[in-house]
Amino acid sequence: MVKSIAGPEIERLIQLLAKLPGLGPRSARRAALHLVKRRDQLLTPLASAMAEAVEKVVECSCCGNIDTRNPCTICVDTARDHSIVVVVEDVSDLWALERAKALNAAYHVLGGVLSPLEGVGPDDLTIDQLVARVSQGDVAEVIIAVNATVEGQTTAHYMTDQLEGFSVKITRLAHGVPVGGELDYLDEGTLSAAMRSRTVF
Amino acid sequence: MVKSIAGPEIERLIQLLAKLPGLGPRSARRAALHLVKRRDQLLTPLASAMAEAVEKVVECSCCGNIDTRNPCTICVDTARDHSIVVVVEDVSDLWALERAKALNAAYHVLGGVLSPLEGVGPDDLTIDQLVARVSQGDVAEVIIAVNATVEGQTTAHYMTDQLEGFSVKITRLAHGVPVGGELDYLDEGTLSAAMRSRTVF
Repeated sequence: MVKSIAGPEIERLIQLLAKLPGLGPRSARRAALHLVKRRDQLLTPLASAMAEAVEKVVECSCCGNIDTRNPCTICVDTARDHSIVVVVEDVSDLWALERAKALNAAYHVLGGVLSPLEGVGPDDLTIDQLVARVSQGDVAEVIIAVNATVEGQTTAHYMTDQLEGFSVKITRLAHGVPVGGELDYLDEGTLSAAMRSRTVF
Repeated sequence: MVKSIAGPEIERLIQLLAKLPGLGPRSARRAALHLVKRRDQLLTPLASAMAEAVEKVVECSCCGNIDTRNPCTICVDTARDHSIVVVVEDVSDLWALERAKALNAAYHVLGGVLSPLEGVGPDDLTIDQLVARVSQGDVAEVIIAVNATVEGQTTAHYMTDQLEGFSVKITRLAHGVPVGGELDYLDEGTLSAAMRSRTVF
């Protein structure tokens, strides 16, 4: 119905915007209208920012991060400790750890987790590249920072097996009570893990 | 912080996406990542759809609708009854009425409502253009379909005053119980209005 009102170009814009996470068909329509009504302040800059991203964004051939340079800003950052490699599932996890300023180290983006049900095997992830990085001997510690899901933990075990034999320390993120979290709302697994890993006050 | 990880181009994309209604800083980041990871399927088409919209989208000089042609598709649609003009605040209201297939008539988009507090006066709206359309004598009925807010109703009264003296029927949308609505959740004003306007079953 909207097609016949506003021309196929606007309809196409709506359909594409609706594919963004967080936007449904209704909010995509609102976003499209917001855009076309703010042509100079928003639509034009966004169109050119996207065109520029199409042009410039690349995947880092070393760690799998997304950046406008290859190797990425993190891989060439001499202020970081490149002997520590934090293994994450996705670039969004890398960004989250960077926002938290969790550690000033290097990263390795797996590109997913092992999932036999969805047909994701070791060859679909960058585990081989990780092993290759470690085999060069410059990595002292691999921190496995995959999600605490079944698939994440399976992937973690698989990686640990692959890295056996190298003189590298393998660690994982601690389990425990989230900062600001209330015990009453936490699941039993987290509470048990937090209890087991309790520290001296 | 993100700026130093992913390059200024991606950061700029995130900042612009965050200005869309329905997307905050966090979801804009997720959307940006979603886009750059789906360059061929999503980012490139969206960039070109936006560039096309910048190029082609215009405001209809007759009714204020947004379209890729001027006069807009609705204004040139000979299957519509152009003697009835539905006055709406915004293009989104026009789209909503069209989706509902409420009436096969013409529209007039005011571009807002009178709001002394926000400095919106009659000259900021297209009320003069509406009066000009009516004064040409082809309009038999003006349906005031502004929102049922204080500003909307003030604007409705102002327009009614301006259209006095023309031989045109002025109507407004009915107030009542929304279809599917539960009485218990409705405000007293709506319930009183629904009671006053009750119809024979």
